[in-house]
Amino acid sequence: MIRPLSISALRSALLGTCLLLAANVFARGTGDLGIVIERADGSVQVVETSTNSSLGRIEGLGDLSHASAVYSRDEQFAYIFGRDGGLTKIDIIDKKIVKRIMQSGNSIGGAISQDGRLVAVSNYKPGGVKIFDADTLELVANIPATYGDQGLQSKVIGLVDAPGQKFVFSLWDAGEIWVADMTDVNKPVITKFKDIGKNPYDALITPDGRYYIAGLFGEDGMVLLDLWNLDAGTRRILDGYGKGEKKLPVYKMPHLEGWAIAGNFAFVPAVGHHEVLVINTLDWSEAGRIKVHGQPVFVMARPDGRNIWVNFAVPNNDTLQVIDTQSLKIIKTLTPGKGVLHMEFEPRGGQVWASIRDEDRIAVFDTETLQQLVTFDAKKPSGIFFTSRAHRIGL
Amino acid sequence: MIRPLSISALRSALLGTCLLLAANVFARGTGDLGIVIERADGSVQVVETSTNSSLGRIEGLGDLSHASAVYSRDEQFAYIFGRDGGLTKIDIIDKKIVKRIMQSGNSIGGAISQDGRLVAVSNYKPGGVKIFDADTLELVANIPATYGDQGLQSKVIGLVDAPGQKFVFSLWDAGEIWVADMTDVNKPVITKFKDIGKNPYDALITPDGRYYIAGLFGEDGMVLLDLWNLDAGTRRILDGYGKGEKKLPVYKMPHLEGWAIAGNFAFVPAVGHHEVLVINTLDWSEAGRIKVHGQPVFVMARPDGRNIWVNFAVPNNDTLQVIDTQSLKIIKTLTPGKGVLHMEFEPRGGQVWASIRDEDRIAVFDTETLQQLVTFDAKKPSGIFFTSRAHRIGL
Repeated sequence: MIRPLSISALRSALLGTCLLLAANVFARGTGDLGIVIERADGSVQVVETSTNSSLGRIEGLGDLSHASAVYSRDEQFAYIFGRDGGLTKIDIIDKKIVKRIMQSGNSIGGAISQDGRLVAVSNYKPGGVKIFDADTLELVANIPATYGDQGLQSKVIGLVDAPGQKFVFSLWDAGEIWVADMTDVNKPVITKFKDIGKNPYDALITPDGRYYIAGLFGEDGMVLLDLWNLDAGTRRILDGYGKGEKKLPVYKMPHLEGWAIAGNFAFVPAVGHHEVLVINTLDWSEAGRIKVHGQPVFVMARPDGRNIWVNFAVPNNDTLQVIDTQSLKIIKTLTPGKGVLHMEFEPRGGQVWASIRDEDRIAVFDTETLQQLVTFDAKKPSGIFFTSRAHRIGL
Repeated sequence: MIRPLSISALRSALLGTCLLLAANVFARGTGDLGIVIERADGSVQVVETSTNSSLGRIEGLGDLSHASAVYSRDEQFAYIFGRDGGLTKIDIIDKKIVKRIMQSGNSIGGAISQDGRLVAVSNYKPGGVKIFDADTLELVANIPATYGDQGLQSKVIGLVDAPGQKFVFSLWDAGEIWVADMTDVNKPVITKFKDIGKNPYDALITPDGRYYIAGLFGEDGMVLLDLWNLDAGTRRILDGYGKGEKKLPVYKMPHLEGWAIAGNFAFVPAVGHHEVLVINTLDWSEAGRIKVHGQPVFVMARPDGRNIWVNFAVPNNDTLQVIDTQSLKIIKTLTPGKGVLHMEFEPRGGQVWASIRDEDRIAVFDTETLQQLVTFDAKKPSGIFFTSRAHRIGL
């Protein structure tokens, strides 16, 4: 009678462990998860926003300065684009690297297709876009950014996804915008827009995926492409974008992907100036300028569009400012600490996370009271990316 | 020597089973999941959109005619609002009922708070809103819709969530709109707007959570409340909303929550008429009318706003029409089958699911080619709800 009992006890114990394991590790929704890029250590911290805690760390991702991420459509996987040309697929449930490849010598960001099947990376060296199977990370298409008569290859920037299995990107050296339709992965259809302006340095796409806008480093303006009307070609807008009484040194190029659209207004960092530009999206004209604490880097809208949060380049990168989009006034100046690099809003906007690199921590704020709710450790945190991005166009 | 080995073998077998269970059942993202309401059987089918398949069924949910659902912020749980007053919390990972309560005699929909902590239900009988702890389903606040001098209670309709932990709803009998601020769950702050018009029958909130618009059954127009400027009170709009050369019988009240906002235009079902109204959201005036196949029920925008999909009341409920939002022309008429009750777009818009009740099936369409991709069985399917709703305001 003893043996069966002990086996039964063992079975119970093992099943208990099994259920416990399942409950703690696996049986969990992924809608409230996120990752924080820890640039110095080449690691990623997995976090959750329901109780604002850390769930673990994934290491060995290489050079993560300026790294960004996209999510698989089921939110189990994130694809991390490293500056060193590394593309790493991580499993945020099991907290491990699934696959890691060095896909180029130097890269600057990526995107995931509308259907979630394709991951695209934009490269500086060699210049072009490589497109991988999201499941296996096998190369499915290589689009070298060849331009001119000598077979030169341009650096590629401002890569975004667009509806209809498209990727849109800009060629820094060539001054071109390309739209790649990947409906048939074996036959990418590339539409090229040439002579769009000098040195596009970054770009954004509106939340509905219709307008692609690139900033021009070599000229005083921007360029807009209406993806619903490609035949109309590109159009210059905001010729006063970088204008001012005197030129200021640019401490950090602003990130265009952080541009905020709220109602009919877009809020954008003025290059080099201590200003946020307000743009009327009905005709893409300048609608005003808001004086701010420093040179803006990210200008981000709370998901309901009622407030805009702004961080700044050195020497003002210890500060965050909050702008009311009705009055266009600054309603709060926060100084969370040195090196505020990035912000990420909860998808419904109740809280916002900020990475404070030089203090090795993340701070979470209530977006109504504008009070800090909690702070926790992270190793030189930079980008913060929540899984809700999986369901957004252009993110 | 035999006993230790057999225990070891048992341990291996159990661990193997454990890992297999974990791998098959638990280790999965929830971003591509959804549920289909099976109204006749009181069951819910759990589906996934990555390969378009069914993952199982949860039964015992009571009367699910006219049922709707919201999701927990982590996407593990759905809250199903039944017509019979039942509120059921289901676990879509483990595919089981977590808790089920009968919270009233007759209810008409619900909402989940911005922070995901509170689930609200609007009731006909007794008229009012009950608010429950999303975790335990314990009642945390009861807001009877009392109006007038005799202590009458109104039926409540058009309940939505809004930023800042608010719920907004309308009182059918009283002709009032109430805004409940639940920041302190122990002290709900209710702001009441009286004399808003006769018999509000349904309402919507814009995707940014700013404008709440109720349709009036007893009058020829609608009423708008700007939640950013409550002091301004309500405002009548679209006085020609139900107008026409002759009154037509209304076979099914259109659902306002299905209204489509695309760019600066809203597309809404014209009550009783074979038309979709186009509204300019800059001044809330009528901007046009599009003739369609029948009385529209749901008028829904593809997530990028480029197309509008419309289904119809009997006797035209075998049809779907697709409208181009630039030309305002119908670009396709589909006849998937009798009883097309509801549509749900993938969050990035590549595919759309439609429930075809009388044929006991779901059909999935490519939104570019407008071709049916796949169909599978469901028992008298009605509402379809994908987990990406967890991250949207007002859904």
